[in-house]
Amino acid sequence: MPEQHIYDVAVIGCGPAGLSAAINVKVRNRDVIVLGAEVCSPPLDKAPRIDNYLGFAGIPGAMLRDKFLEHATSMGIEIRRNKVAAVIPDGDVFFITTREETILAQTVVMATGTPYRPRLKGEEEFLGRGLSYCATCDGPLYRGKDIVIIAHSPEAEIEANYMAEICRQVYFVPLFGEPQNLEEKVQVVPGQPTRVAGDNKVTSLHLEDKILTVDGVFIVGAETPPERLFPGIEMKDNHIKVDRNMQTSIPGLFAAGDCVGPPYQVAKSVGEGQVAGLSAAKFVVARRSQKGQAKI
Amino acid sequence: MPEQHIYDVAVIGCGPAGLSAAINVKVRNRDVIVLGAEVCSPPLDKAPRIDNYLGFAGIPGAMLRDKFLEHATSMGIEIRRNKVAAVIPDGDVFFITTREETILAQTVVMATGTPYRPRLKGEEEFLGRGLSYCATCDGPLYRGKDIVIIAHSPEAEIEANYMAEICRQVYFVPLFGEPQNLEEKVQVVPGQPTRVAGDNKVTSLHLEDKILTVDGVFIVGAETPPERLFPGIEMKDNHIKVDRNMQTSIPGLFAAGDCVGPPYQVAKSVGEGQVAGLSAAKFVVARRSQKGQAKI
Repeated sequence: MPEQHIYDVAVIGCGPAGLSAAINVKVRNRDVIVLGAEVCSPPLDKAPRIDNYLGFAGIPGAMLRDKFLEHATSMGIEIRRNKVAAVIPDGDVFFITTREETILAQTVVMATGTPYRPRLKGEEEFLGRGLSYCATCDGPLYRGKDIVIIAHSPEAEIEANYMAEICRQVYFVPLFGEPQNLEEKVQVVPGQPTRVAGDNKVTSLHLEDKILTVDGVFIVGAETPPERLFPGIEMKDNHIKVDRNMQTSIPGLFAAGDCVGPPYQVAKSVGEGQVAGLSAAKFVVARRSQKGQAKI
Repeated sequence: MPEQHIYDVAVIGCGPAGLSAAINVKVRNRDVIVLGAEVCSPPLDKAPRIDNYLGFAGIPGAMLRDKFLEHATSMGIEIRRNKVAAVIPDGDVFFITTREETILAQTVVMATGTPYRPRLKGEEEFLGRGLSYCATCDGPLYRGKDIVIIAHSPEAEIEANYMAEICRQVYFVPLFGEPQNLEEKVQVVPGQPTRVAGDNKVTSLHLEDKILTVDGVFIVGAETPPERLFPGIEMKDNHIKVDRNMQTSIPGLFAAGDCVGPPYQVAKSVGEGQVAGLSAAKFVVARRSQKGQAKI
């Protein structure tokens, strides 16, 4: 097996902070990969008009986002549409696991956007005891049982169809709009979940107007909270804690944009992305020269 | 005399940080004035090509700067070409004194650019004892005496001509290029100053290859260091110290861009300017509602 390429910098997120980090790594002649979702920056995509990103007066959000993407691709930056499941440090390398592949990088810039949705009541309590974020991973434990999928995006439909093959009953609570591709066996239950209940393990999901008796609750397609992507990362007020160089509590791991705190604004994200990108590039160069010296 | 208008926010500096602050104050519906130099952001003006401000791939610095200015003026932001001499807090108002006028504002955003040039040897020591930054102010003390003007920009020529009327001998050391408008009496001395010397008071200015015997040394047309613009402001590593909201050590005084620290880059400045502008607007609103409550 050929040795796998180790990127200088992997950027997680293709919104303003992530793309700004990437172009700044590139101007420092370090190699970089961007791992992003299908839609780069949903909040920017939906903004009807942005007035306060200097240089573009009154531009629709989607148009500005497209200019950002054009800028990055014009510099030869690769953007892969992979959803990151976890970032694991191992010595001098970070392993970034996605559903499709594992990517290696010397440094990582987290630009994962606005922090996690508000937690569901009981979510933390039952995590690993009937509550999961990945049907594909934990599904087999629920063979022949009843489960519910709280679906934050259409990708949850694939997981629901998979679960329908092995479970007795699969409920599907869509929070993103109308599901389009569900198997007949999956039962759609409209409504807003209010809490996960149980004893030692999950026994039910409460919605505003009904209770579903289930053995498992899967929350699928929502943002993965940073502290779950990167166990052990230091947080502050529900955001990733960084210093003025955008360095997190973990050496070689940087963060920028909405995930490090408000205001949730484009220019602030672009500025922080720049600092994070330059810091990551500097980190790689400094380590290289240390290693060079160590060999002498 | 009519009561003078008090701006919600005065921004000092018309580079990327200052203009970004101004447009962000404006989107929050607060009124704002920008006080800037003749050339907004000399470093950006001179940059042949900027690759790392997201949204503009490979743009000449002067063109980017013009886009920034257009953006600000399209939002009705007034930019006055006044050089600020000092910022003085008085209760809830800041007095911003310029050569032309005094401007009042509830809050101030300092976006004064890269920190001061390296100090001349002896500069701090002799300040107020034969060394000055303003010929117009301190000139009369040197009637009939010999002085030298270290000129960082052409505006120093006006001060030299004025001094020539009252002094016995005026030397002029141009550090900006060729002087164009000096009176005949002013003697141009090319060279690089190395130190100010004297006993209790200034007695000479040393250049690399000569010594000028003088009673006064004037350093004119250089950036005014932040701690002199705003006495008592807390500094850190020769930059203005700020928190994550771009608040300085003085309530109501914010700072952004190169003056708060490296990297000296456009996107970082624009991002910080945004945060400073939004923070200043928020400060004004919070004070207003406090006062409103106090009246009840």
